[in-house]
Amino acid sequence: MTSQYRVNYHLRAHKRDNLIEFIKGMLLTPFVLHAQPKPVTQSELSEIAHSPLQRRRSLAMEENAFRYAEIMGNIQTLIDEHREFTKNSIPMYSRLAKLVPSIGNFFTALPLREAFLQTNNINAISARKHVPPSFNDIRRILNTAQVMAIAGNVKLITFDGDMTLYDDGKNFEENNALTGLLVNLLKRGVTVAIVTAAGYGGNAERYEHRLSGLLKNLEKAELTEQQVNRFYVLGGECNFLFRCNASYRLQFLSDDQYESSRLRSWTDAQVQPLLDIAEHELADCVARMGIKAKILRKARAVGLVPEQKLTREQLDECALSSQMALLKFQGQPSSTPSDVPIPFCAFNGGNDCWVDIGNKLIGVKILQELVGSAPDETLHVGDQFLSTGNDLSTRTACCTCWIINPEETQGILTELDTFMSQKE
Amino acid sequence: MTSQYRVNYHLRAHKRDNLIEFIKGMLLTPFVLHAQPKPVTQSELSEIAHSPLQRRRSLAMEENAFRYAEIMGNIQTLIDEHREFTKNSIPMYSRLAKLVPSIGNFFTALPLREAFLQTNNINAISARKHVPPSFNDIRRILNTAQVMAIAGNVKLITFDGDMTLYDDGKNFEENNALTGLLVNLLKRGVTVAIVTAAGYGGNAERYEHRLSGLLKNLEKAELTEQQVNRFYVLGGECNFLFRCNASYRLQFLSDDQYESSRLRSWTDAQVQPLLDIAEHELADCVARMGIKAKILRKARAVGLVPEQKLTREQLDECALSSQMALLKFQGQPSSTPSDVPIPFCAFNGGNDCWVDIGNKLIGVKILQELVGSAPDETLHVGDQFLSTGNDLSTRTACCTCWIINPEETQGILTELDTFMSQKE
Amino acid sequence: MTSQYRVNYHLRAHKRDNLIEFIKGMLLTPFVLHAQPKPVTQSELSEIAHSPLQRRRSLAMEENAFRYAEIMGNIQTLIDEHREFTKNSIPMYSRLAKLVPSIGNFFTALPLREAFLQTNNINAISARKHVPPSFNDIRRILNTAQVMAIAGNVKLITFDGDMTLYDDGKNFEENNALTGLLVNLLKRGVTVAIVTAAGYGGNAERYEHRLSGLLKNLEKAELTEQQVNRFYVLGGECNFLFRCNASYRLQFLSDDQYESSRLRSWTDAQVQPLLDIAEHELADCVARMGIKAKILRKARAVGLVPEQKLTREQLDECALSSQMALLKFQGQPSSTPSDVPIPFCAFNGGNDCWVDIGNKLIGVKILQELVGSAPDETLHVGDQFLSTGNDLSTRTACCTCWIINPEETQGILTELDTFMSQKE
Amino acid sequence: MTSQYRVNYHLRAHKRDNLIEFIKGMLLTPFVLHAQPKPVTQSELSEIAHSPLQRRRSLAMEENAFRYAEIMGNIQTLIDEHREFTKNSIPMYSRLAKLVPSIGNFFTALPLREAFLQTNNINAISARKHVPPSFNDIRRILNTAQVMAIAGNVKLITFDGDMTLYDDGKNFEENNALTGLLVNLLKRGVTVAIVTAAGYGGNAERYEHRLSGLLKNLEKAELTEQQVNRFYVLGGECNFLFRCNASYRLQFLSDDQYESSRLRSWTDAQVQPLLDIAEHELADCVARMGIKAKILRKARAVGLVPEQKLTREQLDECALSSQMALLKFQGQPSSTPSDVPIPFCAFNGGNDCWVDIGNKLIGVKILQELVGSAPDETLHVGDQFLSTGNDLSTRTACCTCWIINPEETQGILTELDTFMSQKE
Repeated sequence: MTSQYRVNYHLRAHKRDNLIEFIKGMLLTPFVLHAQPKPVTQSELSEIAHSPLQRRRSLAMEENAFRYAEIMGNIQTLIDEHREFTKNSIPMYSRLAKLVPSIGNFFTALPLREAFLQTNNINAISARKHVPPSFNDIRRILNTAQVMAIAGNVKLITFDGDMTLYDDGKNFEENNALTGLLVNLLKRGVTVAIVTAAGYGGNAERYEHRLSGLLKNLEKAELTEQQVNRFYVLGGECNFLFRCNASYRLQFLSDDQYESSRLRSWTDAQVQPLLDIAEHELADCVARMGIKAKILRKARAVGLVPEQKLTREQLDECALSSQMALLKFQGQPSSTPSDVPIPFCAFNGGNDCWVDIGNKLIGVKILQELVGSAPDETLHVGDQFLSTGNDLSTRTACCTCWIINPEETQGILTELDTFMSQKE
Repeated sequence: MTSQYRVNYHLRAHKRDNLIEFIKGMLLTPFVLHAQPKPVTQSELSEIAHSPLQRRRSLAMEENAFRYAEIMGNIQTLIDEHREFTKNSIPMYSRLAKLVPSIGNFFTALPLREAFLQTNNINAISARKHVPPSFNDIRRILNTAQVMAIAGNVKLITFDGDMTLYDDGKNFEENNALTGLLVNLLKRGVTVAIVTAAGYGGNAERYEHRLSGLLKNLEKAELTEQQVNRFYVLGGECNFLFRCNASYRLQFLSDDQYESSRLRSWTDAQVQPLLDIAEHELADCVARMGIKAKILRKARAVGLVPEQKLTREQLDECALSSQMALLKFQGQPSSTPSDVPIPFCAFNGGNDCWVDIGNKLIGVKILQELVGSAPDETLHVGDQFLSTGNDLSTRTACCTCWIINPEETQGILTELDTFMSQKE
Repeated sequence: MTSQYRVNYHLRAHKRDNLIEFIKGMLLTPFVLHAQPKPVTQSELSEIAHSPLQRRRSLAMEENAFRYAEIMGNIQTLIDEHREFTKNSIPMYSRLAKLVPSIGNFFTALPLREAFLQTNNINAISARKHVPPSFNDIRRILNTAQVMAIAGNVKLITFDGDMTLYDDGKNFEENNALTGLLVNLLKRGVTVAIVTAAGYGGNAERYEHRLSGLLKNLEKAELTEQQVNRFYVLGGECNFLFRCNASYRLQFLSDDQYESSRLRSWTDAQVQPLLDIAEHELADCVARMGIKAKILRKARAVGLVPEQKLTREQLDECALSSQMALLKFQGQPSSTPSDVPIPFCAFNGGNDCWVDIGNKLIGVKILQELVGSAPDETLHVGDQFLSTGNDLSTRTACCTCWIINPEETQGILTELDTFMSQKE
Repeated sequence: MTSQYRVNYHLRAHKRDNLIEFIKGMLLTPFVLHAQPKPVTQSELSEIAHSPLQRRRSLAMEENAFRYAEIMGNIQTLIDEHREFTKNSIPMYSRLAKLVPSIGNFFTALPLREAFLQTNNINAISARKHVPPSFNDIRRILNTAQVMAIAGNVKLITFDGDMTLYDDGKNFEENNALTGLLVNLLKRGVTVAIVTAAGYGGNAERYEHRLSGLLKNLEKAELTEQQVNRFYVLGGECNFLFRCNASYRLQFLSDDQYESSRLRSWTDAQVQPLLDIAEHELADCVARMGIKAKILRKARAVGLVPEQKLTREQLDECALSSQMALLKFQGQPSSTPSDVPIPFCAFNGGNDCWVDIGNKLIGVKILQELVGSAPDETLHVGDQFLSTGNDLSTRTACCTCWIINPEETQGILTELDTFMSQKE
């Protein structure tokens, strides 16, 4: 019986985050046991009809907040234990790993209890009697906890572009509400980088065009050369690196200007078979789903660009098909064309599907080496953390915040700003 | 073990549709057993690199379509059986009722097999190897099947307004793509009605304002008096009825101009205690969640209108809290103020939450009596069929299509048009 | 996705108890969060090798017991609330009913917290780190709580026979460990009855044969006439009533010797069509499963008695098939042969399958009327509380204990004896 | 939501078999869609009352058997594919591995379709309308398929002792129904071995005592020296090897009489720390659960022998606690006392709990080397295949049959005998 459920689970795992689901489940027990609806009596009714509306939070609800906070504290402890087991090289035997087998590394501890209390203060999650803590509630609490934890040490913050800094397919406009927050980070000495799938080769102008609103603001803010030099753009996931110069322009850095050979050492001869496989698989998707689309082949990528509106299911199918095809191809000892598997990223871009050679994990690592920022000093902010998304891979290299729109990025950076000020 | 799951299920049931989930589950077995990924061999690889992209659908995939279609046919049979058991007054013992205990009535048979094949022809659901048939896939197939089934007999089509005919909070603009389709329905002799929560009392002008684009088009199309008389607007769920007259204006129909007493027989004395309860409960939500909002009391409704952006969870909490409070109040024998429970509708309006006296079930029934349209001759099209939505109640009275935006309404009406032409 | 699971659930619901599953689920959160395995360090290892074994219970474990107890207390509160809602005629709106929709009546409150602590004191459930609280753990806690609750008021205790008082198909032997406990109950003034499926008509001798060991012990104990008169046997679920007389013999009571007309009012003309349906269905099971079995038709029952070893699955199929056939037959207005549905009981008897007219619910009610024992003064002890079992129906009429063998019956009666002594 | 379920799942995984659960789930779709209960009509009723009982299997049911068979055939294909992926070193990317991530190796193909048809012919699984294919149904089908697959090649059959060849704690009696079947195997040239946890060192007499019934029968059957030499006993999981000699006595084989050094190379210095850990953990279980038990330390084992009746939950707790403690201890790089982890086996013995150094995997491998039997020529028959059982480890080395009592062993060997005769 249970297996059918697990089959469902595995098949839809690309739409889930296991840690968040786990936390949601844990909070359900107090929700069920302590949220207390009561029928209204006739006498209460007449009273109601005449009483003024008062702002009150019942004692019962305060107790509920206390219980939620306690559970968040317990999960914090599970994470601490998992971090210790990880240090001892037996992460697979931690309690958390038993409960959430796909769990990864935590580069910092997470003050979940405190983060919950702060979030609950605003959203009153524990005051709800009929709607239990949701995926988005937990996601936001995790973000807050991560920002709290890293505030004292952060050296490098990387951002996804579309949906993180600006709306999908749009440019960074001059009046973008994030401007002041980004400027502040640079002033504080934090390195800021945009790590994006958008791959225009070494063409600085196209990146400058999309970010012109931000560059203008850096200029307006009269940032010093040292400060603007801390602003980077890394295109094609990890392939094309630009640094902002004193004239507030993006300057391409060629491979020999920074050390990346270890991280990005693939040759064209190794890459082409992979792209052949990916192109073949995308073409197969086009053929078997009968969709109208162009297959675009680039130097380090191949993409499916639809000429009709595709459903999310269709784009996910393309991303998962290419992922699986490449994994299988690389897994077979006979066919591996390089000593180590070449990192790639097959993702649903919202309106298209791309397979990129390299990924944001490599991107973040390159920047970490350049800046000298350890995993627990680095934060990546993005919106694509499902298994068909291209931000997911960064989790192996640094701390992350999973936002769903630029407003949430603003919220997170505002919180970070506050915590950084407190720690100063 | 299972119960924890069921607890989750019950707590989140307001976000589910049980029939759709059931069908999804049934399709999973062929998906799992027949979708066939294979690793690429080295020899295939060299071939791939040189072969042209061809449009082909593999034999395996055709077989998969066949299997899906067979299962859809089986579910069609389950529905037929359930309809027969319903006729025999033992619906609770049908196989479908055992599998989906919350299942309701089906006023027509549903040609699910045919609807699947038609949808699959466009969307190639069965060609996907990694993404199984989804909620939205099944929802669309059910819509198509319903439209197929009713095309030969339809007398009355009712529409929700916001998100069904136009975007949320917007008006019906003159260039709205639905115009031609609605005009066609009126020309064919079908009665068309908009059944909306929007409650402006007998104020025809406010409704005319929101629908001015449509009214202008009726005029442009030079519909006859008989034709435009078939266009109705019913506001406040079921409370304020307007008919379009020969001057393309909406004309209020007072209670004595149509028979509704049996359906809408509540008195002010009966209604006020209900609204007191609802107001009290909404006020309690405001207080315990500490949200900034106004509580608006109207003659037949009470609403919570936020002064800040609320999350979906918060609005659902308000809707479910009021629902539960009213159900409990009405359930207690001592406190029921009328012979029969007064129908109400507590719903999450997307950006606000309203408790209306009366509901769209009553609304549709009033129109059915006015027009002489049986349940199997009536179709309601709306976007709010979850338990916190105000279209759900219509399922008891007529056939329904669950769309998620005006584009889907357009798709459904286009299909209906085709089927009606075929049956002529 | 979820529905597939629910389908499984519904299909196997005959093997579940929803309240127990719910409680199990609630206890899982503290189990997960607080049971604390740690890796052994090298230094601990050398210490271990030399240290004596000490009896110690870690502080952590004591805390765990506290948490479990708290949750049991919360469920106790949910039950109290459900009892109050039941009094107000709105049981369906209690929180417990929302979480466990199939929940029934509770005739007493249940001191679950106290019962847990007592059970945990013996079984150390909260000391387990790897095996969470199980079905059987909870079942036993519920039994203890029920016995605690009823100890002060109990007037009537009814027992199933096979597997409850003696092993399946065996007789009550003279050295049966339950003897002293049953004698004690009679001495205390409690009425004791055996309510069994075994149907030998008015033939007292066959019942005396099976119970000879007990009857001899009643004699040995020199119970007074008044005391032995409190011992009853009710055969055929509810059809054949015997009372023990001063000579320690069972005496058949004819219908006119006690008032049962209201409860057992069916006529032969009404009963035969039901037995026809049941016989037909059992014959159909025999035919379609190709099993070797006799179908036995009695006055008030029809049974399938296999001539080969059947699997549990096959016997469950027979019981569920007959259940469903009779429910459907009775559900159709056209075919109901009496004003009210005639109660019946189709059950898997372990090695055979029977459909009896009447059931233990009627049996217990007859005894309650005879003795003047209210639901909260009556306790039924049995082993067949799944939906294919014949003890389940008693839950509507009285308090129950679900045991799985005569040793557990002994345990429960010993506890009851202790609690009764304490309350004296 | 889903995660809470998964948490449950992981916590109770020691009570599940994932492949069987998966197959059960797959069969549910045809069960749900095609089993067809119908209400009885009044006219049928009068017909029933007079018609003779006929043996008939409805057409619908035959179709159902066809569908089940088709699905079993599909799973057979999934297994074939998984075997091919395993050959290509990418088992983790097979479809089956995605659906049942814990899946292991299959040393032969499994003719599941044929095995189903044969089982169904006897048990009429597909004729059931209310009870879907169960765990035990599938387990038996898998056994039959395994026996079919290996019949042509089998060289070595190993058996667990208790519950497999005789009842728990009992001896092999002279009238044991398995005798003839075991003799037949030896006559056919198959090597037969009993691989048991029972560890009596090199003491042949104690093993002879327990198996005296079998040894006498070997004598009675006048087996030749060559034939009886093919009968082995391997005690202490893999530690003490005996061969039957021409006088029908067991003869101890010392380490230098067979090559096992590679497989069983641990030294006392390596073993003692492991047993220290296990003893410590068992003592901790005794202490924290407050149970009365002796801890027995042997040369290659440590056991918990209760002085009171323990529940299954308590013994599972002991087994899982020791398992986890040893895994953690061996996992820590600093504390591993040998180059490779020393195999061990911590299991619930039904009434006690033991931690043995070595396991049946090693045991089977030793015999395979001795006899020259490949994995696909070796079959292990046992009853302990859950994760707290000591037969589970053999799955890595050979084909297996999971039986639940000696009667099933008899059934399986009878089937094997038939298949071997057919292949001759």
